[in-house]
Amino acid sequence: MKLTLVGAGPGDPDLITVKGIKALQQADVVMYDALVHPDLLEHCRPDALKVYVGKRRGAYSCMQEDINPLIVHYARQYGHVVRLKGGDSFVFGRGYEEIDFARQHGIATEVVPGLSSSYAVPASAGVPLTTRGLSESFWVVTGTTKEGQFSTDLRLAAQSSATVVVLMGMHKLAQIMAVFAECGQSDTPVAIIQNGTLPEQQVVTGHVSTIVQKTTESGVGNPAIIVVGEVAKLAVPDLVALSQSTHQQD
Amino acid sequence: MKLTLVGAGPGDPDLITVKGIKALQQADVVMYDALVHPDLLEHCRPDALKVYVGKRRGAYSCMQEDINPLIVHYARQYGHVVRLKGGDSFVFGRGYEEIDFARQHGIATEVVPGLSSSYAVPASAGVPLTTRGLSESFWVVTGTTKEGQFSTDLRLAAQSSATVVVLMGMHKLAQIMAVFAECGQSDTPVAIIQNGTLPEQQVVTGHVSTIVQKTTESGVGNPAIIVVGEVAKLAVPDLVALSQSTHQQD
Repeated sequence: MKLTLVGAGPGDPDLITVKGIKALQQADVVMYDALVHPDLLEHCRPDALKVYVGKRRGAYSCMQEDINPLIVHYARQYGHVVRLKGGDSFVFGRGYEEIDFARQHGIATEVVPGLSSSYAVPASAGVPLTTRGLSESFWVVTGTTKEGQFSTDLRLAAQSSATVVVLMGMHKLAQIMAVFAECGQSDTPVAIIQNGTLPEQQVVTGHVSTIVQKTTESGVGNPAIIVVGEVAKLAVPDLVALSQSTHQQD
Repeated sequence: MKLTLVGAGPGDPDLITVKGIKALQQADVVMYDALVHPDLLEHCRPDALKVYVGKRRGAYSCMQEDINPLIVHYARQYGHVVRLKGGDSFVFGRGYEEIDFARQHGIATEVVPGLSSSYAVPASAGVPLTTRGLSESFWVVTGTTKEGQFSTDLRLAAQSSATVVVLMGMHKLAQIMAVFAECGQSDTPVAIIQNGTLPEQQVVTGHVSTIVQKTTESGVGNPAIIVVGEVAKLAVPDLVALSQSTHQQD
């Protein structure tokens, strides 16, 4: 009995690790999320059981409680369960809760990290989270906390030279930008990247004071990453044309 | 003429992406750093030119200025240059400077992100940077800035509820812990992971007030990642036995 948590990466199916592919090839059961690219399931054995356990925003606390016992059930019945999750499982992925639950039920666990969207998606738009002279740290926060509020840490980050990355924050974009404006950062560059690393990637750039309107005009929405900081001005909207995998352009 | 920046990941050679492997297979020239696992070079074509451009701490500002024109030289002479760097190239990797220099010289560029050690190394010790009830954000800073000081952002990060990750900070561990202690965090858990994801991984755990002595006693040193925050208490020193790649145990 074993549970292996595998991070599928930010979108592009070639951005999974070699170790993640090897785990998929060995799995008896693969439990996968909504943001996982379907091509990744082709690495599974033909006889592997594939179980979709996608969650919807707002309904996830109920759903997570369903997933944990399902993992235990499948591990006991079939042996090796691979839990394939978008991005990285230990960065806002609730992966630790799954590992903890499985261990408590006597199941061996392993974690295969994946590329976190927090930096890999900005990179696909040409934005480094740190670079000399512009930013010497980065801070990653979620727009959706357990209590439905965004973190109070946002105000500290807004005072620093850190690049701030907000995941799952599009539904609170106006409130988040208001915090930065209150900290005197109305002119700080912002980049928003939707469907990062995929052929349908879209990038919107602006400043704290303008990005809400620009985003509305462009129609960009979830799933998207918000980057606030001087590095956001380096965003190259058409860079994706260079960085797509060949088989995605077919 | 093309430059592809490829992140090699945190150490384990199976923690490179599939896309990174494909780039290595196509490269005419591979320029690689000190922290890149030697097994990765086996993916190169037999006729590819392999160039070691490892840097040493303290001497890097001079060296980086040597690497940039070398990339242009090799791209012009041979075609496709892959720049293989430890971790991710856009997270304290100075990768953007290489991309920018190459573009200015008319060379096409592509970025293939790699697993950043900032979260992948803590994961290999069982530590999620975020998890419900313990931490809802994380802040990554470097212990070595351009001026040789650690970032002023560290003090703001130490006041936040974020998990703080310090890269390249072992030579300033005592000063960094002093900042956290001044911010009333003497009892906050700390985990230090050396050689993360490799068979020789070592983990030391303690608190802000005790970690300097514990680290000295254990002999743990660079390359290491420092994690400060409640999640650090989840570190499982022997987890690496479960998470090593099979071929590394040979």
